[in-house]
Amino acid sequence: MISFKNDYSEGAHPRILKTLVDTNMEQVEGYGLDRFCLEAIGLLKQRINREDVDIHFVSGGTQTNLISLSAFMRPHEAAVAAHSGHILVHETGAIEATGHKVISVESPDGKLTPERIAPALDFHTDEHMVKPRLVYISNPTEVGTVYGRKELEELHAFCKGHNLLLYVDGARLGSALCVPAAELDLEAMAELTDAFYIGGTKCGALVGEALVISNPSLKEDFRFHLKQKGALLSKGRLMGIQFLELFRDGLYFDLARHSNRMADLLRNAIAGAGYSFLTDSPSNQLFPILPNRLIEKLQEDFDFYIWSKIDDNRSSIRLVTSWATCEEAVAAFIGNMQKHR
Amino acid sequence: MISFKNDYSEGAHPRILKTLVDTNMEQVEGYGLDRFCLEAIGLLKQRINREDVDIHFVSGGTQTNLISLSAFMRPHEAAVAAHSGHILVHETGAIEATGHKVISVESPDGKLTPERIAPALDFHTDEHMVKPRLVYISNPTEVGTVYGRKELEELHAFCKGHNLLLYVDGARLGSALCVPAAELDLEAMAELTDAFYIGGTKCGALVGEALVISNPSLKEDFRFHLKQKGALLSKGRLMGIQFLELFRDGLYFDLARHSNRMADLLRNAIAGAGYSFLTDSPSNQLFPILPNRLIEKLQEDFDFYIWSKIDDNRSSIRLVTSWATCEEAVAAFIGNMQKHR
Amino acid sequence: MISFKNDYSEGAHPRILKTLVDTNMEQVEGYGLDRFCLEAIGLLKQRINREDVDIHFVSGGTQTNLISLSAFMRPHEAAVAAHSGHILVHETGAIEATGHKVISVESPDGKLTPERIAPALDFHTDEHMVKPRLVYISNPTEVGTVYGRKELEELHAFCKGHNLLLYVDGARLGSALCVPAAELDLEAMAELTDAFYIGGTKCGALVGEALVISNPSLKEDFRFHLKQKGALLSKGRLMGIQFLELFRDGLYFDLARHSNRMADLLRNAIAGAGYSFLTDSPSNQLFPILPNRLIEKLQEDFDFYIWSKIDDNRSSIRLVTSWATCEEAVAAFIGNMQKHR
Amino acid sequence: MISFKNDYSEGAHPRILKTLVDTNMEQVEGYGLDRFCLEAIGLLKQRINREDVDIHFVSGGTQTNLISLSAFMRPHEAAVAAHSGHILVHETGAIEATGHKVISVESPDGKLTPERIAPALDFHTDEHMVKPRLVYISNPTEVGTVYGRKELEELHAFCKGHNLLLYVDGARLGSALCVPAAELDLEAMAELTDAFYIGGTKCGALVGEALVISNPSLKEDFRFHLKQKGALLSKGRLMGIQFLELFRDGLYFDLARHSNRMADLLRNAIAGAGYSFLTDSPSNQLFPILPNRLIEKLQEDFDFYIWSKIDDNRSSIRLVTSWATCEEAVAAFIGNMQKHR
Repeated sequence: MISFKNDYSEGAHPRILKTLVDTNMEQVEGYGLDRFCLEAIGLLKQRINREDVDIHFVSGGTQTNLISLSAFMRPHEAAVAAHSGHILVHETGAIEATGHKVISVESPDGKLTPERIAPALDFHTDEHMVKPRLVYISNPTEVGTVYGRKELEELHAFCKGHNLLLYVDGARLGSALCVPAAELDLEAMAELTDAFYIGGTKCGALVGEALVISNPSLKEDFRFHLKQKGALLSKGRLMGIQFLELFRDGLYFDLARHSNRMADLLRNAIAGAGYSFLTDSPSNQLFPILPNRLIEKLQEDFDFYIWSKIDDNRSSIRLVTSWATCEEAVAAFIGNMQKHR
Repeated sequence: MISFKNDYSEGAHPRILKTLVDTNMEQVEGYGLDRFCLEAIGLLKQRINREDVDIHFVSGGTQTNLISLSAFMRPHEAAVAAHSGHILVHETGAIEATGHKVISVESPDGKLTPERIAPALDFHTDEHMVKPRLVYISNPTEVGTVYGRKELEELHAFCKGHNLLLYVDGARLGSALCVPAAELDLEAMAELTDAFYIGGTKCGALVGEALVISNPSLKEDFRFHLKQKGALLSKGRLMGIQFLELFRDGLYFDLARHSNRMADLLRNAIAGAGYSFLTDSPSNQLFPILPNRLIEKLQEDFDFYIWSKIDDNRSSIRLVTSWATCEEAVAAFIGNMQKHR
Repeated sequence: MISFKNDYSEGAHPRILKTLVDTNMEQVEGYGLDRFCLEAIGLLKQRINREDVDIHFVSGGTQTNLISLSAFMRPHEAAVAAHSGHILVHETGAIEATGHKVISVESPDGKLTPERIAPALDFHTDEHMVKPRLVYISNPTEVGTVYGRKELEELHAFCKGHNLLLYVDGARLGSALCVPAAELDLEAMAELTDAFYIGGTKCGALVGEALVISNPSLKEDFRFHLKQKGALLSKGRLMGIQFLELFRDGLYFDLARHSNRMADLLRNAIAGAGYSFLTDSPSNQLFPILPNRLIEKLQEDFDFYIWSKIDDNRSSIRLVTSWATCEEAVAAFIGNMQKHR
Repeated sequence: MISFKNDYSEGAHPRILKTLVDTNMEQVEGYGLDRFCLEAIGLLKQRINREDVDIHFVSGGTQTNLISLSAFMRPHEAAVAAHSGHILVHETGAIEATGHKVISVESPDGKLTPERIAPALDFHTDEHMVKPRLVYISNPTEVGTVYGRKELEELHAFCKGHNLLLYVDGARLGSALCVPAAELDLEAMAELTDAFYIGGTKCGALVGEALVISNPSLKEDFRFHLKQKGALLSKGRLMGIQFLELFRDGLYFDLARHSNRMADLLRNAIAGAGYSFLTDSPSNQLFPILPNRLIEKLQEDFDFYIWSKIDDNRSSIRLVTSWATCEEAVAAFIGNMQKHR
């Protein structure tokens, strides 16, 4: 059984493990003040081309989201997210558990635009309602779509103009930034947002995300929030070593490009076989619409999620590729699909 | 510079890293439902000699404490802790951030006893005050003391008799259980508490703690709480693999015994040199009281915390040993101390 | 200017003020343990025909909702409400501020039914999502509709069958219970819900609501929650005296009937003039759809909310009657409407 | 039985009730935007001699404290209070329930001074601990002592110098300001604090406190916090009318002076009879130390709290006077005491 179920089925890229082994017995400071974390932060600042950002490592995406949003907002302020946003659906009310409402905005393609956000702002008029304060997006979105530079610029300008913070959940940021048509890079991410995180766990690391805060007003005392929410690992070195290795020479983007290329192969073959897709995803998550009969056949050899029912005969499935997906697995899937078409 | 500053200066025991490498490319389920976690849980149940406990892995101690206490208590209920308790002093108000007060009880040796808790119960008489509901202790305590079986039995009986839950923070549990005079083991811990955690991070793991819930009323829906607080790692395998390795053949206790033995060497030498200790610690944290002049000399070659001022000429320091402390380092410290005495 | 803007424009029914004056200098216990509160609770139990309910007085509806829901649910549990529900729209995220998500369910008439709730239950399948635990409805709803006995029975049975608590916000409960076709009374409310509140502020009192808890598992320690959220008034007598007066001889229902009768007069005249309504409201809130031209004329002499735009020429407005609405005001409105038709 | 148990045994001063009756049928805006609230705020600003303060009415002291402190602090920030402070002891963890720790500082006379606060600041050194941000005092304190102008000036200067907010719980502020030796008035309170509240409930009102915010950085969006915590009464007129009446012509201070005068009579007689006091209270709460035998005799005719055991033969009791305490009651108590001495 080969899994296309997600991008966290395997461990870490071998180079990361090797560095963990090589540095294992070096005695360093705890709680993220070790030389590995400090070097990784310095390196990331170079890659972002900004010395004035603050960077913190956190062990997972939900934790990064809940710490950031609760640190950035006052009690009566709310986040705005697409109805399919991860914080609205798949984090067990983590943001609400910190006291903040998340306002849901319908979005067929999982993206937020000024036009989609504006009605939510118009609706929240006075102190009997929460005050929208932060726009949460993820890039790629939950359904694999990615933001283009122009889209992000417009969203950024809209947020600035309406006193809204813009926060980007980058669980799979590598894949989004390696879609050439999107024309975005780490520097643009820092410039066009107030804070975003560079996802490690789903992009080759064993565990860990790097939060980048570029809005100066959000930086103060952030380590207090990390500690209060249980995110300050005593062996913070684990974070630093991984990000050092991922960004030393571009491994992070190499892995993302591989992941995208495997998705390209699948996408082209599926489209070539005459099937359509639920969303127009250029990233490492695909949502092809297939006959149920074919899905059953594919399930004999491959593991993946059935995403939604389309009609009595067809469903959409989710296929996820990763740094660890090998071309043979992709070829096997394509062959199988063509055989049972 | 040799560090006796803490027990998290190095990475993980090499065997753990090796198993991480060996299993790296195996595709498994996410979020702690992988075969490694399931096997590790089965193994721990054997070691605890109880099939009916629930076990969850969490990445750090503060996170384990805050998730457990907030899941176990209703909003008006409070925890009781020694004034030096970790949740009272060194977790940035993590428990309060979940809405619960922590009641502080003075304790010179860091331990709680029925006699010390009773006045707090007597004081909280009605609905104008919080309701004491959970007794938080750590074993070893913040100052290195450990609970003996009889002490824990008495505390357990007292809690049962007063409708109090007993929770044990076991960040360094290995060290406590390997103090022979304490006569405690994992089975006793499960029997005499409602929940406790087996600390991994400070006992040879890279990251991770294993929470053991033996009170059936506290088990329901616990994974919801893990997810809501950001503790359900997508690559949960990292936790399972480490605990599998630590408990497969007793490595966990081997490491703890080594750590204690290194502390024994230090303790004996310090006492032999005529110095006293702030607390009567049989575990891997020692608090010798030394002349400031000697401390300054030792600081030239060794890293450690100065704990408290005793008088104008003397201070207590904290020395921590670990699985990674080598006998040479201990000998060097002792030699240095004797030279500058 | 005559106001039909809401049912809290005036003070309290004069009999209530008179009793406040008459009992003013009597020394009584504080914090709701005074003889007035105790007698009022006894009286309400008689009216509900149940000795085994718990009753608490709270100063407002939002406070009653937030204390109840946060006391009744564990941290990972969520409430389900109609998308127009007061807790979702007009309480500034009060429920979320206690840590709980509120799940929104579309409902054209503001009511919840098993059919509308079921999809929300089906959607929330595992620990990555909140756990629906409590169904919040208000009676009357935000748009004036009321539940009939059969509807409430079906909802109650559905909740019981799905381990859901049923909570009723009764800010205007008097009006709902005085709609004869609804066939509901206080006894039925206690029987068919886990908790509900009898609104005082909008039904003739100066300030205050009476929360009735019939589910035994929700009763324990409730006064702790009242105090913790700032709801235990030191001069609790203010609550007791008002509810004593309202329920001593049926004043509460007399006032509600008057309020409904004033709404009947308006409804009949508006319908008679050929206008339709946004919702089919038999209670004291009406939502007629009127030409904008007529609305402008009416605004010269009357105060009311414009509720929503219907088309370029018409809008719905909200008219609210109360115990204090006099027949002359209603006649004046009707006359004005007919003149400018 | 005559009660000296507290200052909230009776209702409101009759003039307040009369104005409630007189204005009862006037239709006004809801939620504190009515003309009574607006006029009362204007009047209070005159009395404070400051146009630039913000004033909000809240129904009780615990609610005022919890809304203010949670609105003023970020999640990792903590309040500092005397160990006997109301928020530490008698509010069921209301502050912690909003997520904030309260740091306890020992204080024999219930007051805070720079010298008592400084060690708490020194102790909280880094992000592993909460960050002290707000100093909470009450005036009078829980044990009846009051701050003199010089003391408050020193505290204010210390707070300013250490980036701490100074907040005063004024549940019985009238009594404190009417102690001539204290040399404080409303103007000084606004000048020397960031926020304070003028207690109504214990000073002649039926219910309600007036929060005064003078620090501009704390004013923004405060009505959102009021609504979110359930404090925005729909019939806000109840608050406005009471404070209008209390401050129209100095009634508030007349009542406080009466209350203090009744306490003076008691204090002088008790001291004259040779008894001492637990604290040096010049306000309306006295804590005489009396023989148990005498206490038992007094309990036959008077209601009061036994505060603490002094030795085997003596206890301290708490006697509270109020606007409603009549000279005959005081004379009866004194006579009784002298008789059974």
